[in-house]
Amino acid sequence: MEIGRTSSETAGKVIRCKAAICRNPGDPLVIEEIQVDPPKAWEVRIKIICTSLCHTDVTFWKLNTGPIAVFPRIFGHEAVGVVESVGKHVEEVEEGDKVVPVFLPNCKECRDCQSTKSNACSVFNKKLAIDMPRDGTSRFRDMNGEVLHHFLYVSSFSEFTVVDVAHVVRISPQVPVDKACLLSCGISTGIGAAWKVAEVEEGSTVAIFGLGSVGLAVAEGAKLRGASKIIGIDLNPEKFEIAKEFGVTDFVNPATIGEKPVSETIRDLTDGGADYCFECIGLASLMQEAFNSCREGWGKTVILGVEMLGTPLTLKSFDILRGRTVTGSLFGGLKPKTDIPLLVTKYLNKELNLDSFISHKVSFKEINKAFDLLLQGKSLRCIIWMDE
Amino acid sequence: MEIGRTSSETAGKVIRCKAAICRNPGDPLVIEEIQVDPPKAWEVRIKIICTSLCHTDVTFWKLNTGPIAVFPRIFGHEAVGVVESVGKHVEEVEEGDKVVPVFLPNCKECRDCQSTKSNACSVFNKKLAIDMPRDGTSRFRDMNGEVLHHFLYVSSFSEFTVVDVAHVVRISPQVPVDKACLLSCGISTGIGAAWKVAEVEEGSTVAIFGLGSVGLAVAEGAKLRGASKIIGIDLNPEKFEIAKEFGVTDFVNPATIGEKPVSETIRDLTDGGADYCFECIGLASLMQEAFNSCREGWGKTVILGVEMLGTPLTLKSFDILRGRTVTGSLFGGLKPKTDIPLLVTKYLNKELNLDSFISHKVSFKEINKAFDLLLQGKSLRCIIWMDE
Ligand SMILES: [Zn+2]
Ligand SMILES: [Zn+2]
Ligand SMILES: [Zn+2]
Ligand SMILES: [Zn+2]
Repeated sequence: MEIGRTSSETAGKVIRCKAAICRNPGDPLVIEEIQVDPPKAWEVRIKIICTSLCHTDVTFWKLNTGPIAVFPRIFGHEAVGVVESVGKHVEEVEEGDKVVPVFLPNCKECRDCQSTKSNACSVFNKKLAIDMPRDGTSRFRDMNGEVLHHFLYVSSFSEFTVVDVAHVVRISPQVPVDKACLLSCGISTGIGAAWKVAEVEEGSTVAIFGLGSVGLAVAEGAKLRGASKIIGIDLNPEKFEIAKEFGVTDFVNPATIGEKPVSETIRDLTDGGADYCFECIGLASLMQEAFNSCREGWGKTVILGVEMLGTPLTLKSFDILRGRTVTGSLFGGLKPKTDIPLLVTKYLNKELNLDSFISHKVSFKEINKAFDLLLQGKSLRCIIWMDE
Repeated sequence: MEIGRTSSETAGKVIRCKAAICRNPGDPLVIEEIQVDPPKAWEVRIKIICTSLCHTDVTFWKLNTGPIAVFPRIFGHEAVGVVESVGKHVEEVEEGDKVVPVFLPNCKECRDCQSTKSNACSVFNKKLAIDMPRDGTSRFRDMNGEVLHHFLYVSSFSEFTVVDVAHVVRISPQVPVDKACLLSCGISTGIGAAWKVAEVEEGSTVAIFGLGSVGLAVAEGAKLRGASKIIGIDLNPEKFEIAKEFGVTDFVNPATIGEKPVSETIRDLTDGGADYCFECIGLASLMQEAFNSCREGWGKTVILGVEMLGTPLTLKSFDILRGRTVTGSLFGGLKPKTDIPLLVTKYLNKELNLDSFISHKVSFKEINKAFDLLLQGKSLRCIIWMDE
């Protein structure tokens, strides 16, 4: 086995460690001993320090049909870790580096990575691989030798994981790891959506559909840009108090406004429609409601939620003609390798509130509690500490 | 009758003149004598010099159902004229000014007019008026006293018309009137869509669905911005020769590419999808095809065509998430009062090709010929001269 620039004792060897395995859709995770292969060329093996649970984990954990519902699987895609060893050709990080793995690749060389307009790195074949993005195989096996599948190119619910270097971002060693963990997916997505996709500006009005962590991160981003009104829409009235901390100024609960459509309520609150609407749930009907809530002339609807049911988004074209825009992006339009370090710097300069997103913490062995908290709408981000 | 700052002999009086009336949907227009009331406050009476036929006239001429299918009616909304007299409060233009009437208002004072992001002037009640936008009444009657309806707040198929001052743009007396006439609707729409809505930049790839005048104006705009590839999509193979003059570099005829979807052809021609796609016909299915033809990462689809069938635009939200945008605007996102004079200046500086859009000219009494030419796909713009 040819290995990269690395000197760890375990380099080049299979590592035995603990991972939280999901053997069947919807089953509680079970912590088992597993085998983690050494990184191949362009790959990085990472010792996870902490990880957190994102809605996308839960969505795929429950998903029991379709070509991407593969089990047994190791979930988790928000994390921070330390590089244990690197494969051949990996120059960008080395053993001991503190890194954030990200589901979105950023090769820095493809046409998308080179463009200032895109973050949809096109280095890998568009046909999404289930396991490692470069060769499509897994680096995980259980103690019986059965292959365990990866998830979103990260699989952080394991003490060790292997990630393609295109999915790895080195971060400052100064930043507290639990805060950096948040930047691995949801919070970056929300902040990026406000800053880079919508380009929210001072005095503008914003409507956010869904006040989970992503939606609250949109609020945080919009607040920092000086939005004058930030309307949060959620069925859970308990969200409002916490939402205030992130800048939400007005709250609309679709369950308590009667017959009136949400969009009409938003239009009333904003003198004709919000400048920017964000859909953070992934429901086609809510995307349409968001679109209908945005202003003629320049209203922009940003789609962040992933629609898992395949329901299409249906728009009246004349409503578009009156100067409305629908746009979307993954990871808030951010390029992981350049933008996560910028967000880290903003956090270290106290220009960004990350602390309030951490509502709970659990030890790795209590990982199923993190699922319960998220499913019950009780947590924003629950940090799962691997060593505890 | 209180009149504005005007000294014409006919000011304040009803004018008798000729107009081309449409009494029933789809019927040939009939030139009749009519009565044109003097302008009320904020209104301008204009002597039309020349007018041209736009697809929207044809669409509404054929339309025989719905609340906006009202007859008898005076069509026409692309024109140039001279101010005959003005109503009270009109300061912006005066008798003798050369003006272009525009279907889109531009009051210069509402929130939209004040914003650099919008051209969707919101001065008038959003409930579209059939006749004059301010009081909803007509200024036209036939010789039996029957009310004749306006069209798009312009009604230029008449020797005299009355237009709200928000719909009037003064232009340089130097510009040839037939060229200025083109800027009244279709050509401005296409150029504006390329420049202001899409913001086509040097080296980009463009796909234009529908090579009528609007589509060709998009091409002209894209060419002037330095687009490297401009693909025209049309079912009429005769369009290609003329399209070359406006910068179209590649031609796709959906009828001759077999089973392969147009979007796949466009993606092949552009290494994964065009940077900018423009739908200039008004068919929901074509809007979807345009959307599917644009690139992941930053592809932008601009809707220009008006969908008259009410068929909604249906999009897969995951395709939006990969960094695609759908947007639209009326009049190419241009503000009539500031942008038409800029286009006139560009024409006078020989920076803009308008001449090639004029494929035919007819006298007012031959106006039905202009309809035939457009319906047969033989004309781009046919100038209708009122005095001939
Ligand atoms: Zn890339
Ligand atoms: Zn996530
Ligand atoms: Zn206005
Ligand atoms: Zn028109």
